Amino acid sequence: MSVADYMQQLGAQAKAASKVLATAPTRTKNNALLAMAQALDSARTTLLEANAKDLKAAQANGLDAAMLDRLRVTDAGIDAMMLGLRQVAQLADPIGEISDMNYRPSGIQLGKMRVPLGVVGIIYESRPNVTVDAASLCIKSGNAAILRGGSEASHSNQAIAACVSEGLIAAGLPATSVQVVATTDRAAVGELITLTEFVDVIVPRGGKSLITRVSADARIPVIKHLDGNCHVYIDDEADATKAINIAINAKTRRYGVCNAMETLLVAQSRAQELLPQLAQGLQEFGIELRLCEQSMAIISGYQGVTLAATEADWSQEYLAPILAIKVVSGMDQAIDHINDYGSHHTDAMVSENFSKARAFMAAVDSSSVMINASTAFADGFEYGLGAEIGISTDKIHARGPVGLEGLTSQKYLVFGDGHIRD
Amino acid sequence: MSVADYMQQLGAQAKAASKVLATAPTRTKNNALLAMAQALDSARTTLLEANAKDLKAAQANGLDAAMLDRLRVTDAGIDAMMLGLRQVAQLADPIGEISDMNYRPSGIQLGKMRVPLGVVGIIYESRPNVTVDAASLCIKSGNAAILRGGSEASHSNQAIAACVSEGLIAAGLPATSVQVVATTDRAAVGELITLTEFVDVIVPRGGKSLITRVSADARIPVIKHLDGNCHVYIDDEADATKAINIAINAKTRRYGVCNAMETLLVAQSRAQELLPQLAQGLQEFGIELRLCEQSMAIISGYQGVTLAATEADWSQEYLAPILAIKVVSGMDQAIDHINDYGSHHTDAMVSENFSKARAFMAAVDSSSVMINASTAFADGFEYGLGAEIGISTDKIHARGPVGLEGLTSQKYLVFGDGHIRD
Repeated sequence: MSVADYMQQLGAQAKAASKVLATAPTRTKNNALLAMAQALDSARTTLLEANAKDLKAAQANGLDAAMLDRLRVTDAGIDAMMLGLRQVAQLADPIGEISDMNYRPSGIQLGKMRVPLGVVGIIYESRPNVTVDAASLCIKSGNAAILRGGSEASHSNQAIAACVSEGLIAAGLPATSVQVVATTDRAAVGELITLTEFVDVIVPRGGKSLITRVSADARIPVIKHLDGNCHVYIDDEADATKAINIAINAKTRRYGVCNAMETLLVAQSRAQELLPQLAQGLQEFGIELRLCEQSMAIISGYQGVTLAATEADWSQEYLAPILAIKVVSGMDQAIDHINDYGSHHTDAMVSENFSKARAFMAAVDSSSVMINASTAFADGFEYGLGAEIGISTDKIHARGPVGLEGLTSQKYLVFGDGHIRD
Repeated sequence: MSVADYMQQLGAQAKAASKVLATAPTRTKNNALLAMAQALDSARTTLLEANAKDLKAAQANGLDAAMLDRLRVTDAGIDAMMLGLRQVAQLADPIGEISDMNYRPSGIQLGKMRVPLGVVGIIYESRPNVTVDAASLCIKSGNAAILRGGSEASHSNQAIAACVSEGLIAAGLPATSVQVVATTDRAAVGELITLTEFVDVIVPRGGKSLITRVSADARIPVIKHLDGNCHVYIDDEADATKAINIAINAKTRRYGVCNAMETLLVAQSRAQELLPQLAQGLQEFGIELRLCEQSMAIISGYQGVTLAATEADWSQEYLAPILAIKVVSGMDQAIDHINDYGSHHTDAMVSENFSKARAFMAAVDSSSVMINASTAFADGFEYGLGAEIGISTDKIHARGPVGLEGLTSQKYLVFGDGHIRD
């Protein structure tokens, strides 16, 4: 069978399964998730063996240590997948929620009902645990899923897929509710993102090149997360302690995450006072600094790398212990800088001024705008979504951390008593 | 300047204007709308003259009467545009609405703020009043707009555009907040729908061929309305009077609208009783019937055209005094028929049975699902949206009638008091 025919077949099967899932009872969906967890537990040996094959091939192919680390499945990793499944089973079912039923002047009663999107296509790289995460979120939200993992993880993903199927069958749901693409042919991605007849939304999870390619070629709406070039702006009226704590936390809590601060903006009136203290804090973490002219003039004796910032630094997502620092005239310049160079992900201001807080919130065009809090909070779990399928930097459909609700839509309900329109 | 360069220029200007509009005060936006109404009133002679040019050219090009009718601008039409502007000015401003601010266990306070999408591209045909409608909804929702009307209406649209600019300038907003594409070169559409850098969403309004083409070629999310193949299903447990009233109203209120019923489904147990009464009612309106075998056997002596329905009839949006009728075994077959042949627009069941109503609502995959009400209610004004930019048959972002809220997104707000993440 050609890759195109194979993907068409997966699409048709997913569409058929989605009709069953759309009205599947909450208990059935939860039972499937719990049975998947049990299946993973029973299949530990098989999972670790399959993963060992992938790791061996990856080593032979010269993948770097970070890639190998993301690819590795351990007993603790299986425990984490099982815990994730049980947590999603405990979340409230978003489907069928009826809201805002109000009477209209005509006499009809109008409201909305939350419904699944249908079929979700997810394209991801290395981490095999995404197979379980994505499956659980799609099933709980009543969607069928077609999952396309990285070829380097294909044995692991297929072994996990068998456990997912086992759980679906145990709960009486179609095994085709979640399908993991079995071919490693790259053409499968191109087919998946153009299955307009069967797939309702595409979620790419991975590096920028994957997401850029998927976005450019998809013929289906994409919930995408490009980069996280996050800022903290320390305002003229910032509390010094809050400013320093937040800036240090936003940079150093974790480096390889999209909610890490990459550029620090400091109001001119506070630069002389705060930059030396900040530098001292950052130095302890061995952060490399990329400094604008003014901050370079203020920071002296830094025990670490300092470079003059170039224009390119303002747009960069380092995902590393590197921080760009720029002194700005005040909030207006900070807002312009964030909107022009940022990635519309998460940006924070530290200020005690109420009116400035209102203005900053309104003007900064980012999926999360924060006042006096660390950008590190931008996260599905911290936001109470229970789980996260990604963080959307788009404005259409879902913005910011995307949980179960981002995988749903709402339809209108109209109740009457024989009502007709004049 | 090439068409591509020209559209790039419009895009860049719109993007710049959108930043001003995003935080424009409610009063400023309303003042612009009211000033546009005044400008239209003052420009009546100019508008009618420009429209006369379009009408003359359209007649010379042999456009049919219906097309000419849609193209015509009259004094009453100008009054209606002015009324529309004033009504949108009176609607609540959706932008800046803050909701759901709740404390999380970490101590941060999390909520959402409603924000504009940015730049909306609207592609439409003949009706010049869409220029005003679209402009008013975009401005009120804080979005910049690029409008591309049909070439047959170009003089009318440019005359209206001048009034729109006048209103914007009077209110102190950038004249480029709403730009009407000045070239009639068809390549402009292809450019507009691929301006990924500047345009956030495309709304095509017009015939199926326009929408299909735009959807296929767009590189930007599309809020689209394909067809309205709406159904009424009369259940075994329908109240006879409600059933007949609703079916007649859904078919005959207006024929050329997307919420008109195109196929009537009747439960077998009620066909013998209800079809003759229904036929009598439909006969008065001169409706042509396309009948399944069973309904053909029941309906006799119909004073009008009756044809045997073919497979193609079940998928057709007639937009005409034609109705397909099919007898089904019961609700389950009706649901399957609606989901398989329908266009996911608006579908209704007439039934007194509570449990069946719940099942129908959950299973029918349409943007509006109705119980004991006419499909004719599926409309932005009836739903209280105040105005409507279209009816979305998609599930992503906006579904069903799209008003101001469909032109917005929500960003997360996080308030802290120096909160950092562990």
